[in-house]
Amino acid sequence: MRLAVVPGDGIGPEVVAEGLKVLGAVAPDIEATPYDLGAARWQRTGELLPDSVLEELRGHDAILLGAVGDPSVPAGILERGLLLKLRFELDHHVNLRPARLFDGVRSPLAEPGAIDMLCIREGTEGPYVGNGGVLRRDTPHEVATEVSLNTAFGVERVVRYAFERALARPRRHLTLIHKTNVLTHAGSLWSRTVEELSTEFPEVTVAYSHVDAAAMYFITDPGRYDVIVTDNLFGDIVTDVAAAVTGGIGLAASGNLDVSGTNPSMFEPVHGSAPDIAGTGVADPTATVLSVGLLLDHLGRPELAKKVNAAVAFDLSTRDPKATIRTTEVGDRLAALAG
Amino acid sequence: MRLAVVPGDGIGPEVVAEGLKVLGAVAPDIEATPYDLGAARWQRTGELLPDSVLEELRGHDAILLGAVGDPSVPAGILERGLLLKLRFELDHHVNLRPARLFDGVRSPLAEPGAIDMLCIREGTEGPYVGNGGVLRRDTPHEVATEVSLNTAFGVERVVRYAFERALARPRRHLTLIHKTNVLTHAGSLWSRTVEELSTEFPEVTVAYSHVDAAAMYFITDPGRYDVIVTDNLFGDIVTDVAAAVTGGIGLAASGNLDVSGTNPSMFEPVHGSAPDIAGTGVADPTATVLSVGLLLDHLGRPELAKKVNAAVAFDLSTRDPKATIRTTEVGDRLAALAG
Ligand SMILES: CC(C)[C@H](C(=O)O)[C@@H](O)C(=O)O
Ligand SMILES: CC(C)[C@H](C(=O)O)[C@@H](O)C(=O)O
Repeated sequence: MRLAVVPGDGIGPEVVAEGLKVLGAVAPDIEATPYDLGAARWQRTGELLPDSVLEELRGHDAILLGAVGDPSVPAGILERGLLLKLRFELDHHVNLRPARLFDGVRSPLAEPGAIDMLCIREGTEGPYVGNGGVLRRDTPHEVATEVSLNTAFGVERVVRYAFERALARPRRHLTLIHKTNVLTHAGSLWSRTVEELSTEFPEVTVAYSHVDAAAMYFITDPGRYDVIVTDNLFGDIVTDVAAAVTGGIGLAASGNLDVSGTNPSMFEPVHGSAPDIAGTGVADPTATVLSVGLLLDHLGRPELAKKVNAAVAFDLSTRDPKATIRTTEVGDRLAALAG
Repeated sequence: MRLAVVPGDGIGPEVVAEGLKVLGAVAPDIEATPYDLGAARWQRTGELLPDSVLEELRGHDAILLGAVGDPSVPAGILERGLLLKLRFELDHHVNLRPARLFDGVRSPLAEPGAIDMLCIREGTEGPYVGNGGVLRRDTPHEVATEVSLNTAFGVERVVRYAFERALARPRRHLTLIHKTNVLTHAGSLWSRTVEELSTEFPEVTVAYSHVDAAAMYFITDPGRYDVIVTDNLFGDIVTDVAAAVTGGIGLAASGNLDVSGTNPSMFEPVHGSAPDIAGTGVADPTATVLSVGLLLDHLGRPELAKKVNAAVAFDLSTRDPKATIRTTEVGDRLAALAG
């Protein structure tokens, strides 16, 4: 197994080190190769994702990414040129984001109840395609557009994956989140696709929430959701709401999957590079470790994934919520528990 | 003062009756004319918003709307043909949505802190314009698009309004919410507009949040926000999050303003027609009454708006959170308190 590792910027390298520590404890056979990509490289060389590096990444079984970004880099450069470029070039059409409230974790909700959602966000279409432009820039007549592209091919494959995941869970419930009453063109494609595929998965019950209502229900009644499937932009927003109610971004893991297996899938914590706390040793590596769990699952090692997840669950249930996180100590504990 | 009233469907007529009760108690000179629009009329006649009705509405000083919608109407029909049509035809470019946590109101947050946000959502552009289409429908090659249109004209006027509102508040703080790192074309227009106008409003401090981060901060740290300005779709989502953390949709008021005064502005609770509880007399009319407060403010009667808001604030602080709401009783109490 060959793993490409992109530590990135800020706290990225710090949390990735702990992720690799835990990975090494359960799967010492995985060979990790680091790649220097991110704000630092761009500052130094002007390079974002050279073609040669992209080709090398393709030769791996999976990618682990920490976080990229720095306030010194203008908005959009690293996102469009590196992060989204990886997702698009490697056809990461399934963006997998579990949101589970672990025992012992303080939710900001007064009465969170049980939360165990699997959010499946489309990763290669929608408003993220970068289609659009600016006309008459910097004049009173400026017009700026953003085009959301949605294809039957792209929607079908992610909805199918969501049905499969829903079928494998105890509740077998799938909710489509969209805004079909306003975005009627794309909304119709998404609704029809869910409707059609539901005949192939009669065991799965299907529901629908408008994105605005879903963002509210995630707070007032998150227990109603099991598996969720949604478009790229709605998924970006609602998974942050889901993360917020399950203990915050420090615990939110994600996988960017090419389900076809043609390209390596990429695993990353949902949080960013947090330059404000970089170097202070207080970043929580748990989201990265949970991402390693997703990675192991994806690489066909579910029993190792279970060990990692169980280590996290145990550790969270025994953490003192008031104590400051120590990045390396958390990694040490999780590696010992999982190994 | 001439007010057009659209009670609408479901609980719409029930909450509007209470809104008018309170309005009558503070401003008996306002003459209200009812208009029959909504799911019921569409079912009966196939009409959504006849041109003649639109013209009549234009002749009023303001519009009060309850809620429209029914499960029997396919998604998009009433939204595009009536609700959004009103917003677009009447140039309601400012969608005003205060989100304040009143004393005595139970927030789902364990430690809500003080929440007092004024969300200003653009109302006539963005992904709501209905621009887009479907190619090769119902084939494996289907493509569906949605185009977000953003103009300097449209963005400037709503951002200017937001600065003006921020200037009039104690904290004088304005946050732009967008997704500039991904939607770089529209994002750039919005950021540049905020930057440029900020030189005209040096007393207002300016901040920026990505929409995903904002949706999280509304839950984990809502106190950081004062006035917010954002695009139509992001505003739709984050104002529901804001409503959720301040006691729910039963309290969320909104105004759809044509700030130029050319067309009547429209006031409506954020909630929908709630057909499940229609007729049972338990709908909370408070959001409608607060919308009446926004209406009075907009019609240049701030002292009456204050009375209405104070009545709501007092009533909420003395409500038994466990008692069932009685629509007419709440209206009676608020009318007595405000009158
Ligand atoms: C950094 C940004 C491009 C990214 C996204 O919008 O997808 C992030 O918010 C995420 O959710 O992974
Ligand atoms: C009903 C729908 C068209 C509307 C919107 O999306 O604007 C509603 O959600 C709102 O927020 O007023």
